Amino acid sequence: MDSADLLIIGGTLVTMDANSRVLEDGAIAISEGSIVAIGARSHIESQYHALKTIDATGSLVLPGLINGHAHAAMSLFRGFADDHTLDDWLQKYIFPAEAQNVTEDFVEWGTRLSIVEMIRGGITTYADMYYFEDAVARVTKEAGMRGILGETIVDFPAPDHRTPAAALEYAQRFINKWRDDPLITPAVAPHSIYTLSEANLQAACALARRNGVPILIHIAEAPFETAHSRSRHGLSPVAYLQRIGLLGPDVVGAHCVWVDSADIAALGHFDVGSVHNPSSNMKLAAGVMPVVDMLAAGNRLGLATDGAASNNSQDLFDEMDLAAKLQKVARMDPRALPAKQALEMATIRGAHALHMEKEIGSLEDGKRADLILVDTTGPHATPMYNVYSQLVYALKGSDVKTVVIDGKLVMENRRLLTLNEKEIIQKAHQYQKKVVALHSVPAMSSPERFL
Amino acid sequence: MDSADLLIIGGTLVTMDANSRVLEDGAIAISEGSIVAIGARSHIESQYHALKTIDATGSLVLPGLINGHAHAAMSLFRGFADDHTLDDWLQKYIFPAEAQNVTEDFVEWGTRLSIVEMIRGGITTYADMYYFEDAVARVTKEAGMRGILGETIVDFPAPDHRTPAAALEYAQRFINKWRDDPLITPAVAPHSIYTLSEANLQAACALARRNGVPILIHIAEAPFETAHSRSRHGLSPVAYLQRIGLLGPDVVGAHCVWVDSADIAALGHFDVGSVHNPSSNMKLAAGVMPVVDMLAAGNRLGLATDGAASNNSQDLFDEMDLAAKLQKVARMDPRALPAKQALEMATIRGAHALHMEKEIGSLEDGKRADLILVDTTGPHATPMYNVYSQLVYALKGSDVKTVVIDGKLVMENRRLLTLNEKEIIQKAHQYQKKVVALHSVPAMSSPERFL
Repeated sequence: MDSADLLIIGGTLVTMDANSRVLEDGAIAISEGSIVAIGARSHIESQYHALKTIDATGSLVLPGLINGHAHAAMSLFRGFADDHTLDDWLQKYIFPAEAQNVTEDFVEWGTRLSIVEMIRGGITTYADMYYFEDAVARVTKEAGMRGILGETIVDFPAPDHRTPAAALEYAQRFINKWRDDPLITPAVAPHSIYTLSEANLQAACALARRNGVPILIHIAEAPFETAHSRSRHGLSPVAYLQRIGLLGPDVVGAHCVWVDSADIAALGHFDVGSVHNPSSNMKLAAGVMPVVDMLAAGNRLGLATDGAASNNSQDLFDEMDLAAKLQKVARMDPRALPAKQALEMATIRGAHALHMEKEIGSLEDGKRADLILVDTTGPHATPMYNVYSQLVYALKGSDVKTVVIDGKLVMENRRLLTLNEKEIIQKAHQYQKKVVALHSVPAMSSPERFL
Repeated sequence: MDSADLLIIGGTLVTMDANSRVLEDGAIAISEGSIVAIGARSHIESQYHALKTIDATGSLVLPGLINGHAHAAMSLFRGFADDHTLDDWLQKYIFPAEAQNVTEDFVEWGTRLSIVEMIRGGITTYADMYYFEDAVARVTKEAGMRGILGETIVDFPAPDHRTPAAALEYAQRFINKWRDDPLITPAVAPHSIYTLSEANLQAACALARRNGVPILIHIAEAPFETAHSRSRHGLSPVAYLQRIGLLGPDVVGAHCVWVDSADIAALGHFDVGSVHNPSSNMKLAAGVMPVVDMLAAGNRLGLATDGAASNNSQDLFDEMDLAAKLQKVARMDPRALPAKQALEMATIRGAHALHMEKEIGSLEDGKRADLILVDTTGPHATPMYNVYSQLVYALKGSDVKTVVIDGKLVMENRRLLTLNEKEIIQKAHQYQKKVVALHSVPAMSSPERFL
């Protein structure tokens, strides 16, 4: 008998491997944070003993979900300013609220709140773009979560830096501190082409490449960005980024809604990862990403929640469902983006989008042990004719029962093991009071509060 | 002190009344199935004593949600045939599966399964169109749920009748049996203009009007229906229904996706209720209902889940979120269908669509006591700046804690009081085995199962 740290026994394994294997009554052995064996339960049980065994009977066992784009700390602004135009939302509400509220402590507690929500919904890896990213890394590491964490660079004064130069210095220190961490991948996040000059975009990019870390950036999110790019540069956002040398296999582009066939080809040629945010794109009326065309072109394509101020959840089960349904109705074809592809975008394709497919995204020997158990015994999940349909169209984030990241249990039977949920919620209420007082949000019972 | 049967004390009351009152630390007194008082907690507590008091602290208290269109028994086909064209889905999968599987027992257990899911998600009233509607009424009544239940009439042989004439006889007996029930409103459901001849449409309509019961019908769901109507009658589906005298204040039309401004005016003029099914319309690529235009025209407009075979959930929290987001992206305007309007469609506007606004849809003195408590203490619901945003964009069906229908508790702290959930799930598994055997669905582990 070989020894393992953790055995997952029973349940149906939805591997998301190259052969789309689905193993009923399977088992997984985990050692030193990696999957060391996966197969039939009888086989694994006869070969391994472990200190801890989890019975997955009645559950689907999947690779942990990968959230390719978030602003985790913005959970503290959840529902703060909805149903406005994108411009009003940013200029009148979000940017002023950030300027007045966002401190390192705010970022710590807001990020913890999002991590609670993400783990509860089966997310084991997330990519983040925000400020005070060193604090984000610290609380992500404490929570035992995997993060690709990008310090945001913008031309205007931001909560953690008065100038882009100061932001780049912060980013360099941040990278130095976290570059060898097994859970945290530090990254540089030039915000977008409309919030950074060409020189600062290139400086951010050069910094990332000198350090060999990913570049996270918003690309072609909404019509105004395309209009801005065409009027200023005579090019689409993607073509402009190509011209200034920013595209490459280290880039993860959030949104990529307004991309034409030449843009899709360029993203493919430079091996850029793209990340779809259906809730955010719908809620802010940004548009519909041409997901089906990008998959047909072979692009690296993941799925994400975006921040809680623009969604207002951090739940990839919702996003899978929405992604599939949005493509169908937008193309008037119910065969567009079938359930299995939507699940791929939240798992193995999501790993591809982050250029991490060698480490995560499927249940396979040698990959990091990031996996989730999803309970299928609820009435809304009964009967089950097809695992992919069930996962995308019927099961919910609240059905996630147990979460393992890098071989370690972070949630077991809905109990969080690495985070003090009560304290986090309490802190969120304190921050809410502060935000309400600063921005004179009307009292709950006032009708204008709800217009 | 007056006596009441039930007091709901504390929590924030989201009344959905004409003044959109939101009362913090409110209370509701219920007697003989009706709301007899609603107001400040201190006031109600000093005036009423009751045998049973529920503490709603930490919850939002809302009118029960109204699901304007369902095929409840189809829960047993959940995920049976997804991601096909609408035509294939109906002709190759759903109609054959119904012909081979649907019996009165199937309908009983399938309906129970949907009712479990609906109550768990805060639905207190639903409109149904299916076969063996007498069995649907029986189990709905047993569950203590409110139902507008339409016996389906089609030209072809159906599970409970070989001819439309037999179906109309069944409908008459069904109406006679249930017409005075406080929870059940019997109805007649001519399926659609493409499954019934003009004579049978008119016969179904005449039967309903002789009996003074509602008419439930699919209207203008998908492009093929409009094409069929234009080629056969030279009219849109709505104009055709107007011509044959079917439109009226007793009609509830499901879908109404393909309606132009003349159709919208006709629906308004005849006071027809229309019901939006965003999940189903997106998943089956039926199209986008012009919800914003219909609201602007003053139409009666509700919200619904459709059947679990085309959704695949029975969750109006999902539908509220989708309805709002779909209008925004379809109109490229984030102000389209704000959260409050989406909630109205699931409550007071939903009651209007069913022509039941005098009895249900808001928390007001004299209305039937259909209400739900929604827990707001979860991390995904924290912080809360705006109750409507939170209900539509952040809270989930699984946050519904307690459900009261017609003054009676049917779920308390997530425990169902009127249904044997375990037995229902067991029966669903038995039916699943039968369906799989009859239709040679490949084994779970076979890759073609999941294509």
